[in-house]
Amino acid sequence: MANTRRWIVPTALSAAAGLALGLPTPASASEADLILPDLSSRTYFGGAVDGWTLLLGGLVVCAMGLAFGLIFYRQLERLPVHRTMREVSELIYATCKTYLLSQGRFILVLWAFIAAVIVAYFGFLSEGHAAAAAAGVRDFPRIVKVPVILAFSLVGIAGSYLVAWFGIRINTFANSRTSMASLRGRPFLCYSIPLKAGMSIGMVLISVELLIMLCILLFVPRELAGPCFIGFAIGESLGAAALRVAGGIFTKIADIGADLMKIVFGVKEDDARNPGVIADCTGDNAGDSVGPTADGFETYGVTGVALITFILLAVARPEVQVDLLVWIFAMRVMMVAVSGVSYFVNEAIARRRFVHVRHFDFEVPLTGLIWVASVLSILATYAASYALIPNIGGDPSLWWKLASIITCGTLAGALVPEVTKVFTSTGSAHVQEVVTASREGGASLNVLSGLTAGNFSAFWVGGVVITGLMAAAYGVSLLFPEGLMLAPAVFAFGLVAFGFLGMGPVTIAVDSYGPVTDNAQSVYELSLIEQEPGIADEIRREYGFEPDFEHAKLLLEENDGAGNTFKATAKPVLIGTAVVGATTMIFSIVVQLAGGIDPATGLQILRPEQVEKLSILHPPFLLGMIFGMSVIYWFTGASIQAVITGAYRAVAFIKRHMKLDGSSRASMEDSKRVVAICTRYAQLGMFNIFLTIFFVTLAASFVEPFFFVGFLIGLALSGLFQAIFMANAGGAWDNAKKIVETDLREKGTALHEATVVGDTVGDPFKDTSSVAMNPIIKFATLFGLLAVELAQSIPTTMRLVLAALFFAVALAFIHRSFYGMRIDVNETGDPSNDEAGKLVEATPG
Amino acid sequence: MANTRRWIVPTALSAAAGLALGLPTPASASEADLILPDLSSRTYFGGAVDGWTLLLGGLVVCAMGLAFGLIFYRQLERLPVHRTMREVSELIYATCKTYLLSQGRFILVLWAFIAAVIVAYFGFLSEGHAAAAAAGVRDFPRIVKVPVILAFSLVGIAGSYLVAWFGIRINTFANSRTSMASLRGRPFLCYSIPLKAGMSIGMVLISVELLIMLCILLFVPRELAGPCFIGFAIGESLGAAALRVAGGIFTKIADIGADLMKIVFGVKEDDARNPGVIADCTGDNAGDSVGPTADGFETYGVTGVALITFILLAVARPEVQVDLLVWIFAMRVMMVAVSGVSYFVNEAIARRRFVHVRHFDFEVPLTGLIWVASVLSILATYAASYALIPNIGGDPSLWWKLASIITCGTLAGALVPEVTKVFTSTGSAHVQEVVTASREGGASLNVLSGLTAGNFSAFWVGGVVITGLMAAAYGVSLLFPEGLMLAPAVFAFGLVAFGFLGMGPVTIAVDSYGPVTDNAQSVYELSLIEQEPGIADEIRREYGFEPDFEHAKLLLEENDGAGNTFKATAKPVLIGTAVVGATTMIFSIVVQLAGGIDPATGLQILRPEQVEKLSILHPPFLLGMIFGMSVIYWFTGASIQAVITGAYRAVAFIKRHMKLDGSSRASMEDSKRVVAICTRYAQLGMFNIFLTIFFVTLAASFVEPFFFVGFLIGLALSGLFQAIFMANAGGAWDNAKKIVETDLREKGTALHEATVVGDTVGDPFKDTSSVAMNPIIKFATLFGLLAVELAQSIPTTMRLVLAALFFAVALAFIHRSFYGMRIDVNETGDPSNDEAGKLVEATPG
Repeated sequence: MANTRRWIVPTALSAAAGLALGLPTPASASEADLILPDLSSRTYFGGAVDGWTLLLGGLVVCAMGLAFGLIFYRQLERLPVHRTMREVSELIYATCKTYLLSQGRFILVLWAFIAAVIVAYFGFLSEGHAAAAAAGVRDFPRIVKVPVILAFSLVGIAGSYLVAWFGIRINTFANSRTSMASLRGRPFLCYSIPLKAGMSIGMVLISVELLIMLCILLFVPRELAGPCFIGFAIGESLGAAALRVAGGIFTKIADIGADLMKIVFGVKEDDARNPGVIADCTGDNAGDSVGPTADGFETYGVTGVALITFILLAVARPEVQVDLLVWIFAMRVMMVAVSGVSYFVNEAIARRRFVHVRHFDFEVPLTGLIWVASVLSILATYAASYALIPNIGGDPSLWWKLASIITCGTLAGALVPEVTKVFTSTGSAHVQEVVTASREGGASLNVLSGLTAGNFSAFWVGGVVITGLMAAAYGVSLLFPEGLMLAPAVFAFGLVAFGFLGMGPVTIAVDSYGPVTDNAQSVYELSLIEQEPGIADEIRREYGFEPDFEHAKLLLEENDGAGNTFKATAKPVLIGTAVVGATTMIFSIVVQLAGGIDPATGLQILRPEQVEKLSILHPPFLLGMIFGMSVIYWFTGASIQAVITGAYRAVAFIKRHMKLDGSSRASMEDSKRVVAICTRYAQLGMFNIFLTIFFVTLAASFVEPFFFVGFLIGLALSGLFQAIFMANAGGAWDNAKKIVETDLREKGTALHEATVVGDTVGDPFKDTSSVAMNPIIKFATLFGLLAVELAQSIPTTMRLVLAALFFAVALAFIHRSFYGMRIDVNETGDPSNDEAGKLVEATPG
Repeated sequence: MANTRRWIVPTALSAAAGLALGLPTPASASEADLILPDLSSRTYFGGAVDGWTLLLGGLVVCAMGLAFGLIFYRQLERLPVHRTMREVSELIYATCKTYLLSQGRFILVLWAFIAAVIVAYFGFLSEGHAAAAAAGVRDFPRIVKVPVILAFSLVGIAGSYLVAWFGIRINTFANSRTSMASLRGRPFLCYSIPLKAGMSIGMVLISVELLIMLCILLFVPRELAGPCFIGFAIGESLGAAALRVAGGIFTKIADIGADLMKIVFGVKEDDARNPGVIADCTGDNAGDSVGPTADGFETYGVTGVALITFILLAVARPEVQVDLLVWIFAMRVMMVAVSGVSYFVNEAIARRRFVHVRHFDFEVPLTGLIWVASVLSILATYAASYALIPNIGGDPSLWWKLASIITCGTLAGALVPEVTKVFTSTGSAHVQEVVTASREGGASLNVLSGLTAGNFSAFWVGGVVITGLMAAAYGVSLLFPEGLMLAPAVFAFGLVAFGFLGMGPVTIAVDSYGPVTDNAQSVYELSLIEQEPGIADEIRREYGFEPDFEHAKLLLEENDGAGNTFKATAKPVLIGTAVVGATTMIFSIVVQLAGGIDPATGLQILRPEQVEKLSILHPPFLLGMIFGMSVIYWFTGASIQAVITGAYRAVAFIKRHMKLDGSSRASMEDSKRVVAICTRYAQLGMFNIFLTIFFVTLAASFVEPFFFVGFLIGLALSGLFQAIFMANAGGAWDNAKKIVETDLREKGTALHEATVVGDTVGDPFKDTSSVAMNPIIKFATLFGLLAVELAQSIPTTMRLVLAALFFAVALAFIHRSFYGMRIDVNETGDPSNDEAGKLVEATPG
């Protein structure tokens, strides 16, 4: 995340030096060190505590958050579960483990590309001595710096990866415990177990992230902090991008493969004889748990660093810098605590209302949690801001302006899910329309109607809610005192992104609800528990309650619907945060390119002749924007193509190996082969996509710096709409099918078939392409920050030759992402058994 | 088109006045008159002819072009046709006429909105006296000016409308003549008749457009030319937008309605018992002939005016202005002639190769025509430029630079169709992939695979070909001499757009090929000619040849495939032109907002403090861009929604009224009811869409001028990609179905069913939403040019209140475009007969 800081601080330092000497700053700073201001130089709460000590207290909150998560983990592990169910969930965990190990090795291969650029830049091109000397601190030699950066990039990868692993482990406890709890015929535990699992993940994730950031801020030597942040940020971004993309492809290959069998063989969801079901369950975790967890981890970090960056870069006075830094981190720490409190408050309310009832709407307490957290967050934001920075910058009104801007973000975090429901929930007019249209128009009008829901949602969510709240934040930023900072609006956007994810643990928790409930249903079916001899007696004897199988299945089905809705509503939140945050990140490049000192006033400014190049009148900027937008379309196509080919193979394999007579469940070997097919195409797809993004970013940054800024803007804005459109179209199709299955009870009809088509089209929409845009955009922005400065250190002709070369390589991978990924025509109709066998052998792990 | 000029000329005039007086120009010019430079002040060809006289010669070429078109019309009319076929084509023409009359009345209603703004602005707010006085010409009073502007807006509408009518009339001759010719068993006439019809339309269209523009340039009093252009441009833009949107909705309601019957009843394409077939034939003309014709008419005009605008505005020296104006128009005139010559050259080659063969690939001579026209155009561009402006601006190298930039556009006009074929032609890997994926994955993977084709094509066509050629043009513009003009790159982009459509008659001709061949096949089936008693004898006796019915059907089917391909390839050309042209148009607003005179040098400049506001650091600009992009998503959804609801009604109606036993054809009354349903939903949809665009544009222009520029940029760029994506995805699905029907001969199988789903999803993709973005983008830009200046004449508070009001109205229509358009849930399953009856009664015409 923090590699942005390296652009800033040098500029800030040179600016400071320039101010001291009365000299203009050079056009571009290219030193590699970041030196933080001294946090202990300011005191708070009437002098009771200095900034450094205050943030030290944050570590305690992080430790408590971690403890919170780990205690929940233990509690879930110990919940009662029947042997048959535990076996299924352990099998799912085992395949997840295989998948994750294979992914881990794969990420290390991708890391080699990034490492090469880091070594090239920091090892050979960058010179940090001047900046260090200017700041009067010790400079570390390259032989120390390069390994440290590389090591921290591995820490970033490890962070994304281990948090994801933690999530998968707890989810594969929680799924069977939920399944078991459903047998009691009471819905409350079916709701509270998955939510507890989600809160555990959310608290661990945010606490680990915050802990690492605070440790870097507080304990790493100030002159090494910059490189640490750079390495860490790139690492977590790489990890998140890889896990999101590959997980998204994997899960949808399996999902489509398993789903289409409903039409082909007329079997029900999660039929144990279907060898695709285990892969589907694995995919639910790989896609819906691993992906969002790694993504949330990275997004939370990047928005924070975008703000740190901005503060060091664009805020004029050092004491205001310290105040803002301390304030930002104090807000984060406070919000972790508020999230925990909100959970307990909401849980107490939910328990009182629902613990004994035989039926309730699972969405009610989940929505309640978001609103409780929002309201408490907003109140706490104002209170804490007033307590901490009542007179920041000498302006007694600034604290509430800052708090109000964060509140725009917090509101976005609550409103975006609500507005999303208008397009994706089972009660919405759009989803009803999808069902209605399918009656006369079959799959054709079903697909069109779902696309329409997505399109309308892109307008309302992206064009009205997000734009509206950004405009409101911009409006408040106009009230900032003159001369406080460069581009107050950019700071405001950064704070919106920050507030958007402020209730991180809650956002992650409701997002993680889905994979657990989805799995719980599968675990139930796969356990074949109803066919166990004497099962009712056994449960009565061993667990002390009377099992109600029919009601249990109903509860699990409804719970799955609630999980779908909240998976759907969490997506636009992560996407919105990413884009708003990216806007702030891009500002770092802008300042690097356009920053300077006004010789007349000695103040830090953006040089107009450079700012002009950020306008649409500068053709490279305009062309870069067009090119960036086109890359989003390619990415959509390439990620779907991997799903198509994989799903084709999976469907062909399952069709041949599904035996409806004789056996009650699919063979383990067949199930593993489907997992292998999914893994293989996920990695093939990811490989092309990652290398394309890598080389496209290098190429764009080498062409011309303002072309590159345009490229990033085009990528971010186009990605915002494409992602919202795709996520919500997918959500609408999914719930339209749900209506037909659950409310209308028309499974097996032509109407059902039509909605299954829409649902499978929506699978890669909502769970592959849309969600992966977020980490892809941020990876390009972060990596680009490095690349654009690397480019500037190279002579023009050489740079352009390299740009052409990188561009050619990128085009080759883009070509390959279709022509190398498409279904082999010769295999049409009947891919042989050997083909699948070869796939298994060729699959790592 | 020319309303842009009103922003320019005042600025240019004030600039001139400012120069003379040594004073800075006011920030924004708000006079309403446009005074052209004196074209007769320069001579060409060694003094042989002055500019005015030279362009007078252009009128002769236009007249010849018109004659060319009209002669072809007569020739086609006189071709032999059997009574049964003529009756069908006359029936199609009759329903088209009803549709067009109803559309005409509807457009006049929409015109009232525009007229109100024109009257408000020119009648009350604008003051043209100062400008006229400064230029030393007579000023016309408002009582003259306002009626003239309104009259010319009607001329613009009439132009779009009558050209469209001409197209429909000739196509409904040509369809039955093609059908008749197919009976000879020789493919050559099947190819040459539709192409002749297309060339006739293309030549008439371009000639009329050029004639009107030249007449305004040459004969209208110089001081009234501005208002004439403004009115004309808005009128043709309104006409094109209305005809494109409504036609696109109409045709796809009918098409889906007719197509889905193939699955429901297992009938073949164009079964005469299907009451949807007449509506489908009408739709082919309403959508694929009327739409592109009106659109082409308007696009050709707007790109021209964008350049005129630019020349008057940004070119410093008057003699260079005149040279460029004369050069531009001479190029246009020359290209009309070149198009005609290319047609004859290509026809001679095709005739020699194909006239006697029994089978040939219809795409070959069509592709040949495009390439012959391209090569001849490029050669003629260089030759004519050298002859006309060998030393323009005193620079002996500028002529080839200008010619090279136009050539980038001409190349785009030839390359874009070729690249489009990579994604949409029956031989392409993408289309093959759609078929392959459908085998195992049914409709699900079919839909996904088609979407992928569209996504990849958006990258390659938009991100690589168009961006690449724009970059090349920008590169050449860097070689222009210093001080020749402001923003040479913008001029270069305008020239690319100009070259893109240079071969207008040919582009229109190959685009118009499709509706004729599509109809020809329908006419054949509907005529039931094979069932006529003694038909073979009759044809032998009356027409003197031996009919070959089986081969005829094969030829018509293949010809339809070729028509599909070229309809598909023409779309990205029109879209690309619109967006590249819009970029130039937007420059007019930019200069209005940012133009000024440097007090130090006295030269015309763009004031940096204003240009900064066109950068992403100016939040209103950034937010405007985001909002503009969101509007594209809304538009996509709203236009598809109208198709969904209409198709649902049509399908429900047809299902109930289709009688397979007893009758050989559907009743006329039922057929007309389907037409009425299509018309009704087309107009309902169009009404919401038009008023939304109207009020959104007003709102955005009233918020803040740079918000508005961002809005237009967002609209144009996002529209470019969305349109290419949708057009080509639709093309891929269409031809995938074609492969299954024609090459694989698997009609009626599950594979066929899957591809029919994709095809119907693609229907509104390729023929409703994508193609309508082009006129919508231009309408918003043109109308916005007026709106933004209107806004600037209003005090700030009032302006913001109005912005909020307009925004609220726009949101209400956006809300209505879904909630007012969706299928009434109570009607689900079985809309009663009465419902359809009410629709018919409620339908105008």
